[in-house]
Amino acid sequence: MTDITAPDILLNEVLARYSDSPNPRMKQVMESFIRHIHAFARDIELQREEWLEGIKWLTATGKICSETRQEFILLSDTIGLSMLVEIMAESGEGVTEATVLGPFFAPDSPERAKGESMLLDPDDGDLVVVRGRVTDVDGNPIANAVLDCWQSNTAGWYAVQQHPSSSTNNLRGIYRTDENGEYEIRSVRPGPYPIPSDGPVGDLLKANNRGWMRPGHLHVWLHADGFKELITHLFDSTSSHIEDDAVFGVRESLIVEFTPDATGELEAIYNFALDKA
Amino acid sequence: MTDITAPDILLNEVLARYSDSPNPRMKQVMESFIRHIHAFARDIELQREEWLEGIKWLTATGKICSETRQEFILLSDTIGLSMLVEIMAESGEGVTEATVLGPFFAPDSPERAKGESMLLDPDDGDLVVVRGRVTDVDGNPIANAVLDCWQSNTAGWYAVQQHPSSSTNNLRGIYRTDENGEYEIRSVRPGPYPIPSDGPVGDLLKANNRGWMRPGHLHVWLHADGFKELITHLFDSTSSHIEDDAVFGVRESLIVEFTPDATGELEAIYNFALDKA
Repeated sequence: MTDITAPDILLNEVLARYSDSPNPRMKQVMESFIRHIHAFARDIELQREEWLEGIKWLTATGKICSETRQEFILLSDTIGLSMLVEIMAESGEGVTEATVLGPFFAPDSPERAKGESMLLDPDDGDLVVVRGRVTDVDGNPIANAVLDCWQSNTAGWYAVQQHPSSSTNNLRGIYRTDENGEYEIRSVRPGPYPIPSDGPVGDLLKANNRGWMRPGHLHVWLHADGFKELITHLFDSTSSHIEDDAVFGVRESLIVEFTPDATGELEAIYNFALDKA
Repeated sequence: MTDITAPDILLNEVLARYSDSPNPRMKQVMESFIRHIHAFARDIELQREEWLEGIKWLTATGKICSETRQEFILLSDTIGLSMLVEIMAESGEGVTEATVLGPFFAPDSPERAKGESMLLDPDDGDLVVVRGRVTDVDGNPIANAVLDCWQSNTAGWYAVQQHPSSSTNNLRGIYRTDENGEYEIRSVRPGPYPIPSDGPVGDLLKANNRGWMRPGHLHVWLHADGFKELITHLFDSTSSHIEDDAVFGVRESLIVEFTPDATGELEAIYNFALDKA
């Protein structure tokens, strides 16, 4: 029997017990996770009371999750882990940069015709149009590409948050490119908003004197046959908090400017480039 | 604005945003946690689908927690983190070794007289007595030390698991040492048992081809005025799974043998030594 008298002996015993996984990827993930979590605990000399606080915090984080709230994604977002996963998944040269999924995506948004507005509720913000093309990295148009879009209203609410003033499908919609790879989304200028700060993640941010605002943005999840999917946002250049997005999602290549087009409508033009699958 | 184009740039930006915590310990913990979680994700090149599986797993782990079940402690136990915290907290030379708290402690066990049995329900196991002294590291007796005890029955159930055959206070009790530092606990030989394997932690153990049995043991949480508290177990030397405790809790110094005493009763003698606070 291994007599567990010191941290290194313990670590080796734990790793030995996880060495028999039938799945090589699972084995790799668990070994790395165990090494890093032990190294973290030793690095900070984790105390029992702190450990128990951590257990309680994780439990509360699980308890507050619901159909429409994902506090663990919020945690991942606010420590930059979500953004790290997206950066690591990127395809490289010429492909549109990715950013975080965020906690407010919901499946089954309604299909919208090209140019249709997804603003269903009264809103005092600027009406805008976002148009452009979806292409491969060589600029060849992709027809029938799906742009699954969602955004907050001017006051900063997403429809899935079920704010009393929101319709279920407000500012959500699935657009498709036409035969020339062109799309057109009508909407309202997306407002900056606080990520939910009334739960365990909010408590953590407050304890660290951190902000919880995100700059205004339009989420786009692109799918097209034969291409890798892309999860990204377009950020409004005039929005507050473009400098200190709570979830580290802003990338210079994703910032757009709304300017009047020939008809006087506020327009942003953005061309998405997808990588072949 | 920092343009987040690569993992290192992201990590530095995240650390910078957590650099303003008013609490130096919080700052230290968060910096170390963020560094290790990013290093883990980069080490394994965490994929988005895996990340989402992880989010769902953590959420399910939170959801299954209740007043009488703590799945995050079970996770901590089964990756050796709980044991690491106890080893790091140890006081050194001459003090009884610690082990994990485990998920089945409940406060407010009934007070028991010296020598009283805490077995309340019918049980077909061996009746045993555990006796000895609680002293300081120099062997001086500690009077009125509290031994908060709990254990499973022969079939492997704790009272807090609310198995239909269990009384609320079966095999739980608070004993105290007398003026000579002596204690005496009557009980039944503790049975080996499975940790709960019907939740997310059980799924993880199964996916890693790991066992979920613990050898039989008596939990003791010692408190005494002027001394550091001690959380430990006494393990039955004859129990199965003494070689592969699912939570890495077994230490050679905590294994006891039950042998007949002068009256024929099965007895284990154990002397606890506490460190001054």
